[in-house]
Amino acid sequence: MINLDDESLMHRCLDLAKKALGKTSPNPLVGAVVVKNGQIIGSGFHPGAGQPHAEVFALREAGAKAAGATVYVNLEPCNHYGRTPPCTEALIRAGVKKVVVGMVDPDPRVQGGGIDRLRQAGIEVVVGIAETACQELNEAFCHRVRHQLPWGIFKYAMTLDGKIATSTGHSSWVTGAAARQRVHHLRAACDAVIIGGNTLRRDHPHLTTHGVADHNPLRVVMSRSLDFPAVTPLWDQTIAKTLIFTAPETNPQLRSSLLAQGVEIIDLENLTPRGVMANLYERGCSSVLWECGGNLGAQAIAQGMIQKVWAFIAPKIIGGKGYAPVGDLGLNFMTEALILERVTMEAISQGEGYTNDQDFLCQGYLTVNSEQ
Amino acid sequence: MINLDDESLMHRCLDLAKKALGKTSPNPLVGAVVVKNGQIIGSGFHPGAGQPHAEVFALREAGAKAAGATVYVNLEPCNHYGRTPPCTEALIRAGVKKVVVGMVDPDPRVQGGGIDRLRQAGIEVVVGIAETACQELNEAFCHRVRHQLPWGIFKYAMTLDGKIATSTGHSSWVTGAAARQRVHHLRAACDAVIIGGNTLRRDHPHLTTHGVADHNPLRVVMSRSLDFPAVTPLWDQTIAKTLIFTAPETNPQLRSSLLAQGVEIIDLENLTPRGVMANLYERGCSSVLWECGGNLGAQAIAQGMIQKVWAFIAPKIIGGKGYAPVGDLGLNFMTEALILERVTMEAISQGEGYTNDQDFLCQGYLTVNSEQ
Repeated sequence: MINLDDESLMHRCLDLAKKALGKTSPNPLVGAVVVKNGQIIGSGFHPGAGQPHAEVFALREAGAKAAGATVYVNLEPCNHYGRTPPCTEALIRAGVKKVVVGMVDPDPRVQGGGIDRLRQAGIEVVVGIAETACQELNEAFCHRVRHQLPWGIFKYAMTLDGKIATSTGHSSWVTGAAARQRVHHLRAACDAVIIGGNTLRRDHPHLTTHGVADHNPLRVVMSRSLDFPAVTPLWDQTIAKTLIFTAPETNPQLRSSLLAQGVEIIDLENLTPRGVMANLYERGCSSVLWECGGNLGAQAIAQGMIQKVWAFIAPKIIGGKGYAPVGDLGLNFMTEALILERVTMEAISQGEGYTNDQDFLCQGYLTVNSEQ
Repeated sequence: MINLDDESLMHRCLDLAKKALGKTSPNPLVGAVVVKNGQIIGSGFHPGAGQPHAEVFALREAGAKAAGATVYVNLEPCNHYGRTPPCTEALIRAGVKKVVVGMVDPDPRVQGGGIDRLRQAGIEVVVGIAETACQELNEAFCHRVRHQLPWGIFKYAMTLDGKIATSTGHSSWVTGAAARQRVHHLRAACDAVIIGGNTLRRDHPHLTTHGVADHNPLRVVMSRSLDFPAVTPLWDQTIAKTLIFTAPETNPQLRSSLLAQGVEIIDLENLTPRGVMANLYERGCSSVLWECGGNLGAQAIAQGMIQKVWAFIAPKIIGGKGYAPVGDLGLNFMTEALILERVTMEAISQGEGYTNDQDFLCQGYLTVNSEQ
């Protein structure tokens, strides 16, 4: 039995949209359904940039029956010619009676223009159904079009005493299997994953989705020195692509070996989180996952490159001095602390015969500070 | 309408017992009810060492009607002459028919002897009702009698990036008002609160219950130097007592001033967490709250003086280097981390007009290691 109220149908659009999670950038995640006489007669989602939009797939499935139907879509239909023709024209041509929109498209090329065009054509338009959920699904896309920078997520896993490694740098593993799998799913939803040179040298990570998805994010390394071993999982370009940002003329020998293997290297005179994010924006990234250590994390936060924090907390005590999740931010008073908003805490069960059966995940938003 | 099943009556005993929370050491928290013909005809709790036990108050209230009644009590009745005569004899003399016991008393002077005595006298005895809750209420007492040391709770408040202060040492406040009030309640349930000299110099704490209870724990300071200012809230003995553990012959001038104000000073040649806990055990303490910084906390953990962790987590980021909740434990591999068991996480609402409306409290048990 299908629930056909507006809220439920909008959530159906969101579920459809999520089928392309991590594959649509720089485009948003969009799903659409066509409803007529209490029945869903068409549905679709946008599979990726350069391919048709969700509305087109849904209308195609509905065929001639779309005339007089109501279309649900989680994001305002586009009204401009990009790589594909405008969806507004397709909806008008199909003769739909009503369009229910989750949220206005913040893209300056759209921003209400699609809704206006539909209304001008005599189509009834309702806006703002399940709006919070719609905003959240496309928070990275919205940030991208508003700030001309990707949305930054800072993820770390720490012990209950705030350590990401022992004082000698050993860190495998802070959290259990279930928490690590959540990270693999998170990577699948992101366009790029960034680490610094120390994390590469210490952990030799893969930074892949480890089979939870059929695609991997772009793996990005920031390094002033290019002082890396000749062999590490990140150099294997058959699994996923790797991009290194470094300073000009670093380590010529390794450089030529990496280029030969297909690793991409970009020299930046000024190697900063903001510079790297600007480059990733130009490449079409919407969401970038920072899996770096505390020092690079602090730089990224200070430059306003982090909008959301995912803190995994393992209920264990390791003690020590260094290797904390966030390095120096130059804050001298506790009252200056960066406050997270819309915070959630959840238990993540490992269910694999550990004595200790859960980690915790705390998620929250840092107030966007893109003026720095 | 009163629920008179065994579980409910035992929880009534626990509720009665809690009326004396923080006041009974070295004795346990005990409540008792007398039930006859489906009615509670007597109830009581142990108010503190040297005063009658819970059973005596309950039998007193029941009077002659106690004959043939059932008595519920969360801890096995004592069978030895301490400061008061044995409760077993009082129960036998009152002619009760049945005794329902929450848990066996681990005190080697009792340990089943009370139950045996009652059975020998022809009284039916049931043991183990709501046993987990009974064990938890008296976990400090049980640890005390088993290990001849007080139960140690390590409490800290940290940011989501694992800091208890900024890099300059500023720490007011990490958490909000509701979390701090939870700490005041926790202090009311403990016999002593310990800090180190750095915490005193940096924070000038009161370490009192701030009005949430009519009593305060003993305030304990560990300091090798006795290098303290002449005026700080801890020296005010009209609010609560203060005890300093220090090395012999430190700071004679301050020493005489403190003694004149009524502060107690104990010189220990070997000033260690274990030495201090042994002394507090001799004084009758069952539960000791460690509110110290990371270095002293790490020593207390390493010496097996901490059984439980209360970690308050504020959803904010401060960054920095030092001032972490736990200092060096000499653990080089993450796999050596001390695992917490029976972990709970809860949100603590501030409800006082903060943008950020909650902190989190993570509680867990460290496996008791009293062999070090």
